[in-house]
Amino acid sequence: MGQLFGVGVGPGDPELMTVKARRVLASCPVIAYFAARRSRGNGFTVIEPFVEEHHELLRLTYPVTTEAVDRDTYERSISAFYDRSAASIAAHLEAGRDVAVVCEGDPFFYGSYMYIHQRLSDRFPTEVIPGVTSVSAAAAAAGRPLVSMNETLTILPGVLPPDELKQAMAGVDAAVVMKVGRRLPAIRDAAEACGIAEGAVYVERASCEQERVLPLADTEDVDAPYFSLVLIPGTGITER
Amino acid sequence: MGQLFGVGVGPGDPELMTVKARRVLASCPVIAYFAARRSRGNGFTVIEPFVEEHHELLRLTYPVTTEAVDRDTYERSISAFYDRSAASIAAHLEAGRDVAVVCEGDPFFYGSYMYIHQRLSDRFPTEVIPGVTSVSAAAAAAGRPLVSMNETLTILPGVLPPDELKQAMAGVDAAVVMKVGRRLPAIRDAAEACGIAEGAVYVERASCEQERVLPLADTEDVDAPYFSLVLIPGTGITER
Repeated sequence: MGQLFGVGVGPGDPELMTVKARRVLASCPVIAYFAARRSRGNGFTVIEPFVEEHHELLRLTYPVTTEAVDRDTYERSISAFYDRSAASIAAHLEAGRDVAVVCEGDPFFYGSYMYIHQRLSDRFPTEVIPGVTSVSAAAAAAGRPLVSMNETLTILPGVLPPDELKQAMAGVDAAVVMKVGRRLPAIRDAAEACGIAEGAVYVERASCEQERVLPLADTEDVDAPYFSLVLIPGTGITER
Repeated sequence: MGQLFGVGVGPGDPELMTVKARRVLASCPVIAYFAARRSRGNGFTVIEPFVEEHHELLRLTYPVTTEAVDRDTYERSISAFYDRSAASIAAHLEAGRDVAVVCEGDPFFYGSYMYIHQRLSDRFPTEVIPGVTSVSAAAAAAGRPLVSMNETLTILPGVLPPDELKQAMAGVDAAVVMKVGRRLPAIRDAAEACGIAEGAVYVERASCEQERVLPLADTEDVDAPYFSLVLIPGTGITER
């Protein structure tokens, strides 16, 4: 029976992969990765330089989800997709081949690998290799200490409705808003309403070639991709 | 003028260092690290196998803080310590030597490196290398997806007063309590009071040889070190 690996490959820069991720990828005969249709996949882009002739690649292409469908239909479609993906991976594992499932960032931090883990970790020996998150990479890119001492850090997805965003951002010590995309104006509004817009930083594709760092206040004209985030660094650091 | 590097070396397992951290450490003539008196330093323990003859080691020993002193005295002492540490590092940088400041986990996530960054990054060219946090390593060790989809993740220090702990843990989607130590019983109480104790996991020294993973409910007799944490994984994952 093969072993399943959930491999965090970090935020984008191949040098931010861990030594362990590199070793496990090199040793697995099968590398599985998620990708949107017509995309190479962010995880795959990171590991592509390390793919060798002996590797079998298993591309798992997300179903089209851009068309307007109701929530139930969407959930059924995505759930069936993860079922099919898990079955493809399980076939390799049953044949005795180890499978590395590539996951950008960290597998258990908003990663798609989780849905494979949930379906297969009871049936096959499984190991998860943690990775550097986009949060850490973005703080490093911005040169801004994120959270210190007795501060609390709140990490929230930008896709929350505007009211919930405002509620979640009120009174935070430090915060990160993930998955920004088209919600950037709503996030900027919420940060301003909560009085934490000053010092907030927008970071796009942290650690990648296309990395971009801007004060949140200067993002009026920015067309933010999904893979961008907003940092609201804590202020405790300034007291020491 | 030398360059300052804040190098995240990950949660403890030397294989969880990034390829970039390894490269930068190898290339810097001076390696600085923090350590408590009579301790080798957690960061140093990770990188020790990679110290070479050409490296000059700069140990920064925290002042004794176990004696009962008032808060102001403590803050003055620790602030003076960071001033002295920054001055020692600056002397190398001024002499043209690059300095790598080792930081366990990620430098901008509750890391001591921040206090050096704050004092020197305006004066010297500076780069921060993000690292894998103990949070990611703990979730991987526990085999428990931490946060998914539209969930919010709250990361809080266990040193908060019990009332604030309870308040912070009420109604969370997913949470991590850091720096557990002697606060373990208070954290367990707070998790129970908030109805989130079931499914909570205690993780000690994630990814290190002494790693230990237990259900939070089974920690009655545990003498938790400072470097332990409690995971309260989100439940969104189960819906897919």
